[in-house]
Amino acid sequence: MLKYYHAEPLANSLKSMLPLFEKGLAFESVYVNLHKFEQHQPWFVAINPEGQVPVLDHDGAIITQTTVINEYLEDAFPDLPPLRPNNPVGNARMRYWNKFVDEHVMNFVSIHGWHRMVGIIARNIESGDFEALLENIPLHEQREKWRTARSGFSEADLANATRKIEVAVDKVDAQLAETQWLAGDSYTLADINFYSHCGMMVERMFPDMDIASRAPRLVEWRERVTARPATQQALAMPDHTAPGLRTWSGAR
Amino acid sequence: MLKYYHAEPLANSLKSMLPLFEKGLAFESVYVNLHKFEQHQPWFVAINPEGQVPVLDHDGAIITQTTVINEYLEDAFPDLPPLRPNNPVGNARMRYWNKFVDEHVMNFVSIHGWHRMVGIIARNIESGDFEALLENIPLHEQREKWRTARSGFSEADLANATRKIEVAVDKVDAQLAETQWLAGDSYTLADINFYSHCGMMVERMFPDMDIASRAPRLVEWRERVTARPATQQALAMPDHTAPGLRTWSGAR
Repeated sequence: MLKYYHAEPLANSLKSMLPLFEKGLAFESVYVNLHKFEQHQPWFVAINPEGQVPVLDHDGAIITQTTVINEYLEDAFPDLPPLRPNNPVGNARMRYWNKFVDEHVMNFVSIHGWHRMVGIIARNIESGDFEALLENIPLHEQREKWRTARSGFSEADLANATRKIEVAVDKVDAQLAETQWLAGDSYTLADINFYSHCGMMVERMFPDMDIASRAPRLVEWRERVTARPATQQALAMPDHTAPGLRTWSGAR
Repeated sequence: MLKYYHAEPLANSLKSMLPLFEKGLAFESVYVNLHKFEQHQPWFVAINPEGQVPVLDHDGAIITQTTVINEYLEDAFPDLPPLRPNNPVGNARMRYWNKFVDEHVMNFVSIHGWHRMVGIIARNIESGDFEALLENIPLHEQREKWRTARSGFSEADLANATRKIEVAVDKVDAQLAETQWLAGDSYTLADINFYSHCGMMVERMFPDMDIASRAPRLVEWRERVTARPATQQALAMPDHTAPGLRTWSGAR
């Protein structure tokens, strides 16, 4: 039995939800309310000591980290529609892109998202309550990120993050001039990764980048991903984000 | 035919050399002299536009990024002794550790290595020559790292890197209380990753950490990895590091 602990269909929570729907896997959805900090509560930390969503529970085996979860689903269900090229060079191309998104894209989009959304949440918490909240966060890096979100990220950090996203947008657009999907001829976990962390919302989040003219192939690719039935199913999952905080996901 | 472009048997260059020897694969070794900045020369950038070693060329297919190369070797030579557990949960454990080393260990050991070794090299280059050198470096991040190595990393960055390495040492030691190897009962790419980037040199690089008493299981594990015939073969590969610059690799 598959149980998937997740938040809104965006970023990491979307990234491992898409393969579940693509593969037609039945799973129990457990919504973890990040707006109420449920990911830092004892019941959840008992499941994932790192206090982060999403988590996949497969017959009691706990798998964390979205890139790891997504390869796990390929290994565990090899007979379902594959999201890995399943040839050595194709897999390497896919993993190259996964690594690029994980290390050079995800955190930098996240900085802008946190700056705009989590910063508002964090500043609405009384000072004493905020320190108590931080004490519940298992990972040092996450505690620091919350602290920085409250005080505001520096202009230098935001500018560097923007530069990284521009590099990524140009790199993806150039790749899509060569191949239909990021890792070649088939839709893979690499497309799912970039879409979930950047592609789906980059145009709304960064209007100054003028994505439509800067990266037309990325826009066309994004429409193809969005139109997939599995993507539509995932995007229809519950979203409890307060309307005023939708600057990250964009209005839907 | 396999061709492996690499530098000294340490860190990334060691990390993909170990599987080649473990699997008994014949390969042509192409030594790239980082001390002469050959990785930024046009002939090498034509092979890897990112200007970084190592690179695997398999019958003309160019594979970069050590974690990607190492999974590629598993996919391409499934009949040779495996370095992946080859069951879904085991693979997930291995990839969790690979991701941890790639994102939370490698760069932080590297900062100390660059601070001590590359800093000396960079400061020995005349200012004009140094700027010319930077112009040859394809990746923005690498240019910044060279610039910082020359001026010296900040105390805050060095202290943060030390903290990350301490977290990693404790985490590995705790895992080795549970399992013989990082991902379970068998020696995998996860062990190779942590050994190459941290385990083999952490005791020499950070004597203040008192690794022998802080992480005795890590030390015992390191000795097991070092004793493997494949490790011995890899460590015997040419090392052109000037003796005065061996603070990174430690005297051997």
